[in-house]
Amino acid sequence: MESAEFFNVQPVAQALQTLLGHWQPAPDVELLDPREARARVLARDVHAPEEMPAFPRSTVDGYALRAAESFGASPALPALLRVAGELRMGEAADEALTPGNALLIHTGGMLPPGADAVIMLERTQTLGDDVELLAPVAPGENVLQPGEDVARGALLLGAGQTLRAQEIGGLLAAGVTHVSVRVRPRVAILSSGDELLPPEATPAPGQIRDINAHTLAALVSEAGGTPLHCGIARDDFDDYFDRAQRGHAAADLLLLTAGSSVSARDLTRAVIERLGAPGVLQHGLAVRPGKPTLLAVCEGKAVIGLPGNPVSALLVARQVLLPLLRHWSGAPPPPVAGVRAVLGSNLASASGREDTVPVRLLERDGQLLAEPVFGKSGLIFTLVGADGLLQVPLDSGGLRAGTVVEVQLF
Amino acid sequence: MESAEFFNVQPVAQALQTLLGHWQPAPDVELLDPREARARVLARDVHAPEEMPAFPRSTVDGYALRAAESFGASPALPALLRVAGELRMGEAADEALTPGNALLIHTGGMLPPGADAVIMLERTQTLGDDVELLAPVAPGENVLQPGEDVARGALLLGAGQTLRAQEIGGLLAAGVTHVSVRVRPRVAILSSGDELLPPEATPAPGQIRDINAHTLAALVSEAGGTPLHCGIARDDFDDYFDRAQRGHAAADLLLLTAGSSVSARDLTRAVIERLGAPGVLQHGLAVRPGKPTLLAVCEGKAVIGLPGNPVSALLVARQVLLPLLRHWSGAPPPPVAGVRAVLGSNLASASGREDTVPVRLLERDGQLLAEPVFGKSGLIFTLVGADGLLQVPLDSGGLRAGTVVEVQLF
Repeated sequence: MESAEFFNVQPVAQALQTLLGHWQPAPDVELLDPREARARVLARDVHAPEEMPAFPRSTVDGYALRAAESFGASPALPALLRVAGELRMGEAADEALTPGNALLIHTGGMLPPGADAVIMLERTQTLGDDVELLAPVAPGENVLQPGEDVARGALLLGAGQTLRAQEIGGLLAAGVTHVSVRVRPRVAILSSGDELLPPEATPAPGQIRDINAHTLAALVSEAGGTPLHCGIARDDFDDYFDRAQRGHAAADLLLLTAGSSVSARDLTRAVIERLGAPGVLQHGLAVRPGKPTLLAVCEGKAVIGLPGNPVSALLVARQVLLPLLRHWSGAPPPPVAGVRAVLGSNLASASGREDTVPVRLLERDGQLLAEPVFGKSGLIFTLVGADGLLQVPLDSGGLRAGTVVEVQLF
Repeated sequence: MESAEFFNVQPVAQALQTLLGHWQPAPDVELLDPREARARVLARDVHAPEEMPAFPRSTVDGYALRAAESFGASPALPALLRVAGELRMGEAADEALTPGNALLIHTGGMLPPGADAVIMLERTQTLGDDVELLAPVAPGENVLQPGEDVARGALLLGAGQTLRAQEIGGLLAAGVTHVSVRVRPRVAILSSGDELLPPEATPAPGQIRDINAHTLAALVSEAGGTPLHCGIARDDFDDYFDRAQRGHAAADLLLLTAGSSVSARDLTRAVIERLGAPGVLQHGLAVRPGKPTLLAVCEGKAVIGLPGNPVSALLVARQVLLPLLRHWSGAPPPPVAGVRAVLGSNLASASGREDTVPVRLLERDGQLLAEPVFGKSGLIFTLVGADGLLQVPLDSGGLRAGTVVEVQLF
């Protein structure tokens, strides 16, 4: 009866490598205003269409002047210039500064022709229509030269960059109002199981509500994808295959969650094999939960068969789906996998298997403590109390309390 | 000239406390399907409308039986039961199990009346129409009793809980298809400055594109708020006040970014004072960048006057706006402020001031290193290279290379 469930498990990283060897997604690119592209990933390098700044700018509030006229100035022996007026923000400084004169200028203001430096207000003293310089300034001091920030044609942002507030600002500052970003991956989600009903239904005895479709949709949205719901397949090959095929056709990735019985799990494998070549690449991951996971590529699209148990489905999807979606977008892995914390209790684990353990994080004596959240396997509420997940490594027989661990926040 | 800029700076935490003493937002609540409420915050406690599970469920694949009939069974002396059939997933187990019989049951399947335990498949052996039990099971073994996960009326999730995949799943599992969540805060954003143009315009000499409105809008969206754009105000009281008043009326919070000149900054303060009582509560924060920030409450709405410099505006908004939006939603602070890393270079800082330093994170010799990203103040591209921010504490004269610091990722 269990025979169909004997499979050669592989570590997640290795199984993903196998899958990526058969999956070369070439996502479409769309042209968006950076203001509409938060959290999207650049598909192409962006070069500066113009130099920044476009004109010589003051970096302080002060007086624009000829530096040479300040040389030798000191509090004891100030240099004296006539204040010829004020350079107003937003106005072009057209008229040249004539010798013996200075102009009041604000941070970001444009230097007039003839001026080559700005002296800070704090180093001056007004004297009627004149200004006393209490210190010398060097040519170029407190001035940003045209192109000093960004030269025309310079690389502003590279392909693969995720757009955050600062990248959006940088693009707009340079006058880039359209960027090429990868389209969002469409992820079809199909649950299977004769016992499943949609959440709005009232289950009869023996039935339960399907939640996998919705926890996985939330995960897909969180990762920047678009979930496509394919409903609930009966434990019947034709219904299951028909829905899976439609999801496969409409989406870039397909997520299936198997029914609970062994035969229902076999059905998932059979459905995937029928979706096309090369089919199932790996059946079984060296993880807990999530061991009976299937990784497949069918006709150029990634297909993941997840366990039906809601906790297993969600935790293994985080490990498998998130890297695949990152691969799709071309974004590099994040610089940090998680936060470091001290394990609060001993954790047993079988060697040769990577356990994912939900933990709550607590601050104690200035130390961050990771306390495992135990709960009945399968009960989604176990994860409600968790702040993050920790992985017990493949080659460890468990972890002792006091070990420093890395916790992936969620 | 600088006289208007002398103010009594306060640490951010203290200034926020002052503001919160005058700001008691009472956000509206909306009723949403949990599937549409990802990342939203519950406004009320949610109790279980029904017990979970609703029927006795098997937690394994095996045979449902009367436990007493397995007592004393061993591989040497197996107990024998007749397999009366299979309990199919999703079907109610109406018919009582009669003595001497067992029923094949799948994980999650419903126990029939008369059965009080499930023996795992692995501890059985089929023998024609019979099954040999190789071990005893205790009454209740491998069975989840009705209400054992969640009792009817039990607290499922508390007010203030942010809805992640697992909370959405938990709610749907319990049949909760509507929850009360806080509405998204509307944040009006108004830039000011005669030198500013919208990003799509081509600046003439002396002019630059306004990016603060858009970096701040991205920050607001990231934090779950809705940005409302109020355009660009001239450095003119009437135009500035008119736009600010409209933003104030339409939104729950108002963000202003001041023009660059001292007089433009004074204008921001004057506009805020005119918006209503109690007006400006704090002018000046003990931070760098961001010192000339204004915190105000006007007619029950929080108003923040940010510096015009794009880096300053974005960094101080992260420190001030994010806690205010969290206060609005009622969500507790996150369990972890950031990741710990080792500082890669010495950092000087003035005591009595909290410096925010953008850092890049690098993995070196298994250690996470935080390398400060230096750049000209005001250049938004400085932040493009950064993975996070570190705060140099108020009471420190700087930090030495090798110090363990906490980096807030962004």
